[in-house]
Amino acid sequence: MSKILVFGHQNPDTDAVGSAYGFAYLAKEAFGYDTKAVALGEPNEETAFALDYFGVKPLEVVHSAKEAGSTQVMLTDHNEFQQSISDIRDVEVVYVVDHHRVANFETANPLFMRLEPVGSASTITYRMFKENNIAVPKDIAGMLLSGLISDTLLLKSPTTHQIDHGVAKELAEIAEVNLEEYGLQMLKAGTNLASKTADELIDIDAKTFELNGNKVRVAQVNTVEIADVLERQEEIETAIKEAIATNGYSDFVLMITDIINSNSEILSLGNNRDKIEAAFNFKLVDNHAFLEGAVSRKKQVVPQLTESFNR
Amino acid sequence: MSKILVFGHQNPDTDAVGSAYGFAYLAKEAFGYDTKAVALGEPNEETAFALDYFGVKPLEVVHSAKEAGSTQVMLTDHNEFQQSISDIRDVEVVYVVDHHRVANFETANPLFMRLEPVGSASTITYRMFKENNIAVPKDIAGMLLSGLISDTLLLKSPTTHQIDHGVAKELAEIAEVNLEEYGLQMLKAGTNLASKTADELIDIDAKTFELNGNKVRVAQVNTVEIADVLERQEEIETAIKEAIATNGYSDFVLMITDIINSNSEILSLGNNRDKIEAAFNFKLVDNHAFLEGAVSRKKQVVPQLTESFNR
Repeated sequence: MSKILVFGHQNPDTDAVGSAYGFAYLAKEAFGYDTKAVALGEPNEETAFALDYFGVKPLEVVHSAKEAGSTQVMLTDHNEFQQSISDIRDVEVVYVVDHHRVANFETANPLFMRLEPVGSASTITYRMFKENNIAVPKDIAGMLLSGLISDTLLLKSPTTHQIDHGVAKELAEIAEVNLEEYGLQMLKAGTNLASKTADELIDIDAKTFELNGNKVRVAQVNTVEIADVLERQEEIETAIKEAIATNGYSDFVLMITDIINSNSEILSLGNNRDKIEAAFNFKLVDNHAFLEGAVSRKKQVVPQLTESFNR
Repeated sequence: MSKILVFGHQNPDTDAVGSAYGFAYLAKEAFGYDTKAVALGEPNEETAFALDYFGVKPLEVVHSAKEAGSTQVMLTDHNEFQQSISDIRDVEVVYVVDHHRVANFETANPLFMRLEPVGSASTITYRMFKENNIAVPKDIAGMLLSGLISDTLLLKSPTTHQIDHGVAKELAEIAEVNLEEYGLQMLKAGTNLASKTADELIDIDAKTFELNGNKVRVAQVNTVEIADVLERQEEIETAIKEAIATNGYSDFVLMITDIINSNSEILSLGNNRDKIEAAFNFKLVDNHAFLEGAVSRKKQVVPQLTESFNR
């Protein structure tokens, strides 16, 4: 029997990697599946920091399940097929562990699916360890904790569920780290943007949304100093214009998120400047504007854009 | 706050009713939701037998959540929107407990979803009672057991999961019934087709599936003697033709299932006779054919049709 691949979404973030790593182990220990955790891309710097910290080897990168010899897969931290492995429609989805809305997901057969509207897929994975009375190894606790911290910006994002607080505390204990100290250290590792070209920067964490016929790209970068990123505005705008031309985006919205003070600067180029401004009730000056208290694309940007584009 | 409606699929069968009845109670007791179990149609004779046996009042029938004053719903035993309440796209789906494939299901926001490929939604509901340490009242145990027996044909259908056997035993104990005796009695109550008009008969347990652009209706009736049903073929075909004309089905597939010997006769009318025949590798003679060992629409009919229609 070939192994069942377990992976998070494309452009993997720390929750995608942490949840896949943890769930592959759980599915083996608790349910007897012959699993293998893999990733749909290289780890970003934040994830690389977490992997290194807990002594975990980066997950093998795969792009096709069938090429990797697998006909069955388990998805963590996503369900939408356009965010999944290239041949997702040709393989059997056996299990899904996720904390996103459901869309563009369909199966031929019944499956296991465990969705909860909590802060991270890692949170759900940890809960399943407990339900099944499986001890969480230290390195897995560390990676799950990292996924939780990453997705909730250390429990400060409005996507944070009350459950996440307790889970973070328990995971930090098992992983033998100080939650606040480790969390900030890890998030800061992800803000090292100096080493990135502008092309790379606008693609670190970016998703495309269809808004009333418009193809809107919403990217996010984390920083400890918004001004440091704005210093590179010219080259970033050049990269954005290129991305728009190449991919046919109607608009490109870049969230530059200050993880220390929990605010974002929005830098936006494209056809629907009026709709972007209306969405956030601000004026773009030199193509950017401050959005106080905004750190979550899922809760504080995409719904507002959706509404504005539909008006 | 208006109540959150909890319901199974249209044309409710015993599992749809049992799981909704049980889950509404669990969601209230374990998670604090203000729920109300309802149904999308009147109980069939099998379900009526179970309700009566365990002293449960038939669930209120609703057709629109908003008309019933609710903006939030929980689905049991289904997820496909075309099997759900008429205004499913206008309300928020908070929870899904199901044992079917996922299709035609989409949400704007993250939600709770608990899917397992076991024999019944009632099975999953019972497992959640145990996980949350909530005692199962006798009448709920009876209805969950009835749902499980109905969907697994007393643990004989290939949809039966190893988990179902243990769950059935435990539920029978709580409900204080003999599993075999009660099960056969309940299943037989559902085979009383003589009192049904042909129109009613083809609608007792029927679901619509979108197969490669075709609207395929797959209905099932249980009997202790297939020949008894085939005696009424002429009036049944008239009813099917009417249903096709009224609802725009491309095809109508009726499974006449012998619950004693675990076989089915397939009666089929519609545009894609070739695809139906290819699906089951048989020839329809006088519009019907024998399908040995087939008792499960979900495992032994719908996947085969899906594949055939997609070829």
